[in-house]
Amino acid sequence: MPSEFELIRRYFERPAGAGQSVASGVLLGVGDDCALMARTPGTVLAVSTDMLVEGRHFSAGDNARLLGHKALAVNLSDLAAMGATPRWATLALALPEANEGWLRDFSAGLFALADRHGLTLVGGDTTRGPLNLCITVMGEVPEGAALRRDGARAGDEVWVSGELGAAALGLACVQGQVTLQEPERAHALARLHAPEPRVALGLRLRGLASAAIDVSDGLAGDLGHILLRSQVSARIDFTRLPRPGAFARLGDAELEARCLLSGGDDYELAFTAPAASHAALLALSEELGLALTCIGRIASASPGPALRVLDAAGQALPVAGGYDHFA
Amino acid sequence: MPSEFELIRRYFERPAGAGQSVASGVLLGVGDDCALMARTPGTVLAVSTDMLVEGRHFSAGDNARLLGHKALAVNLSDLAAMGATPRWATLALALPEANEGWLRDFSAGLFALADRHGLTLVGGDTTRGPLNLCITVMGEVPEGAALRRDGARAGDEVWVSGELGAAALGLACVQGQVTLQEPERAHALARLHAPEPRVALGLRLRGLASAAIDVSDGLAGDLGHILLRSQVSARIDFTRLPRPGAFARLGDAELEARCLLSGGDDYELAFTAPAASHAALLALSEELGLALTCIGRIASASPGPALRVLDAAGQALPVAGGYDHFA
Repeated sequence: MPSEFELIRRYFERPAGAGQSVASGVLLGVGDDCALMARTPGTVLAVSTDMLVEGRHFSAGDNARLLGHKALAVNLSDLAAMGATPRWATLALALPEANEGWLRDFSAGLFALADRHGLTLVGGDTTRGPLNLCITVMGEVPEGAALRRDGARAGDEVWVSGELGAAALGLACVQGQVTLQEPERAHALARLHAPEPRVALGLRLRGLASAAIDVSDGLAGDLGHILLRSQVSARIDFTRLPRPGAFARLGDAELEARCLLSGGDDYELAFTAPAASHAALLALSEELGLALTCIGRIASASPGPALRVLDAAGQALPVAGGYDHFA
Repeated sequence: MPSEFELIRRYFERPAGAGQSVASGVLLGVGDDCALMARTPGTVLAVSTDMLVEGRHFSAGDNARLLGHKALAVNLSDLAAMGATPRWATLALALPEANEGWLRDFSAGLFALADRHGLTLVGGDTTRGPLNLCITVMGEVPEGAALRRDGARAGDEVWVSGELGAAALGLACVQGQVTLQEPERAHALARLHAPEPRVALGLRLRGLASAAIDVSDGLAGDLGHILLRSQVSARIDFTRLPRPGAFARLGDAELEARCLLSGGDDYELAFTAPAASHAALLALSEELGLALTCIGRIASASPGPALRVLDAAGQALPVAGGYDHFA
């Protein structure tokens, strides 16, 4: 069996030139005690880390290539939510065994996404243990331009990119709770297994949005983080939430509300913006070929729930919190 | 049970001012999609990641405070080996359950070490799963000053800090392979469970050392990385290796050679330096109160093993490679 160092070399060290140009800023990549990177003057460093555990975030036997994509996608989504340009990442892997086919497919999925976003893998760690993937991403954002969670102001509009609930619907399908026909099934599963981080959108929201977050744990919980940090409240119109057509055909109102409001894994951006940005956001949506939907409005903090979701009749829907790993 | 977000807030978010001064460079810490950090002009970013898995790097029931110390110490050791000033870290944790006592002790051990080195925890992730600790550290080093693995030159001397083999001896003791008397037992266990990263040494080696690595997988294997990257060979005198007195009393030559050459977890620095640095290194040793021992010399690459370890009679000892998680 190849050694740990040989496995690292074979699947995670890449020939110079492959995503490691001068523009990458990488002075020293995989293979020393630390990686060394030149930072871009006038920017600040944006860092996020995410850990994916078998049996919780994915299942044993899941497609390794898709897993490589998703492990990086969820991290890129955090950079997107900050308006940061992806730059570098480290990968720590615990593997139950040195399965070369798995490593080849996993690294292929990871590198394909990294290359599309100009991100360089600069270091890592490989050990034996229950399957666990921990990626730390680093990006750069011009000083003062980051999209934070604490910038929402009363009067701002609330927006969301793409559509909500498809990944949760895909999970319900995988778990046998619903039956979907093609092409709805393929669409929901793609959203679950191969989310597309909204990096380009995040970069363009700088100067337009007042606050942003990525929707990873469900809209209600994630929007709640913005409300808490910004000390404001919000009213959302349930009927305006963008969603896959499958929900209309399924006709299960409870499932639909759960997937749209507290389903995880959407990896869309939820953001707030002054009403004056409305037309610019619609134009940006057109330009990026990505739906941007105004779903509600920010108000001052007031007694009662910070987030109210109103149905077509203007009645408040019960809102469960976001996903909580220890609830 | 407290929620994931409450646990993070309680044990990993710290009041402003506690290790998060303006000097920390942290513009936005735990609690957004990314942390944001200012850069120090004239420096490059040094990054390393390490994953510790229960059952492999530590045992179920190990003291949580010591584990918090060690999880960060092994990462700081990588910054030390690069000559980098510790700046920031992220922590991803998979926990089988939300054990508050464990989290309190773990975070106390981690923060105590972080504070001593001026390092700020800027972000993290908490999830449920088999116990796994993944820390990514970030440091800064002046442009061109980093201690790399590829700088060793023929004629350089080979040095090591502190002593070798004590942690491996402590592990042998824990595993019942040897019996140690006090205070030798306490010393070996402290070296195993509470290694002291040689950060101050690493900073002072800038400009003195030609190459450096931290000894985490055993001297033979780790020095081998320097030899490979620098394309040189080395001759080490076994009798000169600094070691705990316990080995002389145990009188087990095989155990001694194994602990000194291929035992893991020393977290000392092995480095090479021009002979002209010899006196300066002895003075530095005195100043830091840390043993620095010249153990051999670098030669040009030549046929045969890159690393030769000679015993008192000048005979070559058999040298096993470093620790390999998948060997």
